[in-house]
Amino acid sequence: MKPIMEVAGLIGVEEEELEMYGRYKAKLSPSLYERVKSRKDGKLVLVTAMNPTPAGEGKTLTTIGLAQALNALGHKTVAALREPSLGPCFGMKGGATGSGRAQIVPSEDINLHFTGDLHAITSAHNLLAAMIDNHMYHGNPLRLNPQRIVWKRAMDMNDRSLRGIVTGLGEGNGTVREGSFLITTASEVMAVLCLSEDIEDLKQRLGRMIIGYSQEGEPVTAAQIGAVEAMTILLKDAVKPNLVQTLEGTPVIVHGGPFANIAHGCSSVIGTRLALKLGEIVVTEAGFGADLGAEKFMDIKCRQAGLKPEAAVLVVTVKALKYNGGAAKDRLHEPDMQALTAGLANMKRHVENLKKFGVPAVVAINHFADDLPEEVERVLAECGAMQVPAAVSKVWADGGSGGRELAEALVGLLEENASSYRPLYELETDIRSKIGTIVREIYRGAGVEYSPSALRSLAEIDKSGYGSVPVCMAKTQYSFSDQPRLLGAPEGFTVQVREISLSAGAGFAVVQTGSIMTMPGLPKSPAAEHMSIDGDGKVSGLF
Amino acid sequence: MKPIMEVAGLIGVEEEELEMYGRYKAKLSPSLYERVKSRKDGKLVLVTAMNPTPAGEGKTLTTIGLAQALNALGHKTVAALREPSLGPCFGMKGGATGSGRAQIVPSEDINLHFTGDLHAITSAHNLLAAMIDNHMYHGNPLRLNPQRIVWKRAMDMNDRSLRGIVTGLGEGNGTVREGSFLITTASEVMAVLCLSEDIEDLKQRLGRMIIGYSQEGEPVTAAQIGAVEAMTILLKDAVKPNLVQTLEGTPVIVHGGPFANIAHGCSSVIGTRLALKLGEIVVTEAGFGADLGAEKFMDIKCRQAGLKPEAAVLVVTVKALKYNGGAAKDRLHEPDMQALTAGLANMKRHVENLKKFGVPAVVAINHFADDLPEEVERVLAECGAMQVPAAVSKVWADGGSGGRELAEALVGLLEENASSYRPLYELETDIRSKIGTIVREIYRGAGVEYSPSALRSLAEIDKSGYGSVPVCMAKTQYSFSDQPRLLGAPEGFTVQVREISLSAGAGFAVVQTGSIMTMPGLPKSPAAEHMSIDGDGKVSGLF
Repeated sequence: MKPIMEVAGLIGVEEEELEMYGRYKAKLSPSLYERVKSRKDGKLVLVTAMNPTPAGEGKTLTTIGLAQALNALGHKTVAALREPSLGPCFGMKGGATGSGRAQIVPSEDINLHFTGDLHAITSAHNLLAAMIDNHMYHGNPLRLNPQRIVWKRAMDMNDRSLRGIVTGLGEGNGTVREGSFLITTASEVMAVLCLSEDIEDLKQRLGRMIIGYSQEGEPVTAAQIGAVEAMTILLKDAVKPNLVQTLEGTPVIVHGGPFANIAHGCSSVIGTRLALKLGEIVVTEAGFGADLGAEKFMDIKCRQAGLKPEAAVLVVTVKALKYNGGAAKDRLHEPDMQALTAGLANMKRHVENLKKFGVPAVVAINHFADDLPEEVERVLAECGAMQVPAAVSKVWADGGSGGRELAEALVGLLEENASSYRPLYELETDIRSKIGTIVREIYRGAGVEYSPSALRSLAEIDKSGYGSVPVCMAKTQYSFSDQPRLLGAPEGFTVQVREISLSAGAGFAVVQTGSIMTMPGLPKSPAAEHMSIDGDGKVSGLF
Repeated sequence: MKPIMEVAGLIGVEEEELEMYGRYKAKLSPSLYERVKSRKDGKLVLVTAMNPTPAGEGKTLTTIGLAQALNALGHKTVAALREPSLGPCFGMKGGATGSGRAQIVPSEDINLHFTGDLHAITSAHNLLAAMIDNHMYHGNPLRLNPQRIVWKRAMDMNDRSLRGIVTGLGEGNGTVREGSFLITTASEVMAVLCLSEDIEDLKQRLGRMIIGYSQEGEPVTAAQIGAVEAMTILLKDAVKPNLVQTLEGTPVIVHGGPFANIAHGCSSVIGTRLALKLGEIVVTEAGFGADLGAEKFMDIKCRQAGLKPEAAVLVVTVKALKYNGGAAKDRLHEPDMQALTAGLANMKRHVENLKKFGVPAVVAINHFADDLPEEVERVLAECGAMQVPAAVSKVWADGGSGGRELAEALVGLLEENASSYRPLYELETDIRSKIGTIVREIYRGAGVEYSPSALRSLAEIDKSGYGSVPVCMAKTQYSFSDQPRLLGAPEGFTVQVREISLSAGAGFAVVQTGSIMTMPGLPKSPAAEHMSIDGDGKVSGLF
């Protein structure tokens, strides 16, 4: 690892613009953005993916490796990534810092407490929760209805026992009511932090968050509870982007990590904007497959922040193609040209979808050691037939040099200046039309059915004056549809909308299809059981 | 503020032994202790206090000011303090970084997330909790009794609604059972971290913590749950002491902050030991008045860590003396020589008590602007009559120079080498005798009454082989007795022991007299409502 000061120097960041957290991590001071904000933006590239297998297809890995490869080709590149959460790290998924030779470092620190951003978000979230119950305890002047408090509590941990709780039991302990904990990444505070432009905007957004309803049925906000300034104080450092590096010394801004279902799943606007001022190319990613991640990146983040994506990289794997073509989950390592060929329909649809945003795409085949040459050739041939550039990416095994072909294909695309980015839908239509457009154009479903509760929420949101927000779809990541087993390129299905809720601070309406888990559980043998640390603090088994 | 590297240089700490958190905070690397551990220890001084008014008597303030004064006199001094908790900071008490001209800085950072130690402790605590419920969810091979899980959850927030909860509600969310949240400072993980000698000892202690009982009534430990390595990984940086400075550039180690009732209320052993290798004099404090703080400092921390306190400073105020002499809480600013004279009995008893530990004392009169000269004279005269050195301390108004007299008195005492420190009681007697000794010798009560539940616990602890641990008294801070309104120097009272529980990891038996609150609530108008932050991140109203 290079000292982070040296990495910062590569992109023209000066020493006094860094707030050091040890030798290898730093926060970037707001004065840096002030100094560079009038510069021309670099080119923004989104890394997204086809519908994945449960193991994931390597978006983070590809983002890191691609940034390394671009730098090696002489293009000053900054990657912009999300921050890991402790929950999955100690549960099942492992870390979120890439792997093999495409990693960000110090990975141990980044996967643990990093610079404390998630802890700050947890604290701000729970301060608001405590102040809400405290308000009711001390006379409840706002006439909050304890049965309609929608603000939950948060913890950065996988703990299924906290999904359904009752609080306030015992004499003198306040109002007895049902409650729940979210994992911190699912907190609206996280989404707000990631979409905010600066501290002022952060305050405004926090203030708009709806915490519940009065006895008269009127929404009550965090501003009315008087929590906004204190919450912002808790977030004042968390709002500053973090700088780390890849194994090859490429600068990476790691900042924010909202859920990709009930939130938009992208790293922070503040971090992305700053990266665009510091790099000629900025490579970033968005959670889940392109049907969710890319759509929300384009329709929520880029639209709101005025960003223009110049290209998209669609990560596919031979395994995921076979999986989408009907191969069994535990036989994906076996040759199966029939399943592979059938699965190409999934890739094809994602490429078509990306074009609907006016953004040119390149396909990255994230290569595994057991992929057969004829399988890879088949994918490349399909891309050729679709006239979409494609490249095999071996960044896991070879780091930046394994991404050279992909980087060259991407640079070729960028040099064409072919992006005519536009969001999929207009904001000034009603929520229902926006949902309809996404289902029709991106998912290719036949229609949408709303639960009675969702219809009531639709009416409420339109009445509240928030009808022109974008929609944030919460859907299974495994299928274009809302049914996890409908793989490939399904058609004719109807999407069931169960709940719609307004995240007024984040500025979107969350549309829940199916049941969305906002607090994961631990598996039978959690990752935590297989870790160790010696007397000198040396850790193993963390990721 | 000086750069922390410069402050570290004053006590011979080298650059590579610092892990920077910005320019003004650093963690001290374990390699530093390795380098200096064979040095002779400096002289350890405890700052403690008489029984306080609800506003507190200024122990932290005096500790900071005294360290500044000692440095000004040419004695290389390091202060060792506890870390603040977010709960009180956003609730009522305000920060814990001193005030006036005796403050540690950067106070805003220290009072907020600091270097993340409390967040790490919260995470480690809650990982264990999640793993316990997860164990029951996945077949419960240890046959845990869900009605006898004693491990609670933790949050660094004042939130009374979490004192009594039910968890696990809803299908698929685990075992429904009663639970509770503690404030993080009350977590046994905090006590363990503060008493540990190093990472190995930390692991051993975490492993011994009792999390509940099996269906057969046998204690089950954190080690059996398989959580210890992962918890230690979460704590690997939190275990390193933090270095900051006072307003006058005096080095201060701020590390750990356990509750002073259900825990021992002292900063970390690791931090104190390190301070003793770096300073000629180390000034530290212990929570609450001397009946609780000094007793536990002497009987738990110093005994276990092999530390020898050379002197104690007893902080008194004219207001607290009047309060202990019967003056009303809201009239303490008015002259009342009769109440003052009566209240001197409280001070006198604390001085006598300190001598029972073989530790010589000096009285510090923490001066307020509205103290009358005759009031101060009366206190000094009483000290003269008792033949205990005393000095007026004006460190709030004047910083180190306001503590010169106190520092000189202390140095005089230290030069006499008069300490013959010894704990109050032997460990190798039963728990009941130890409690009896403290009540008789320190509190001066007539006897102790045990609830049936406490008697059962006594038998259990003796049976478990933990009978030789020290006791950790949890009692009101306002009185020598267990009755908050019994002020002054009460006699003839009986202490009621309600519960006794074993903190096997910390290594003490907690003796609860009265009801002990381990999760505070917010007041009607919490401090959080009166804070603000501007667009440049400038904070006001935080403390």
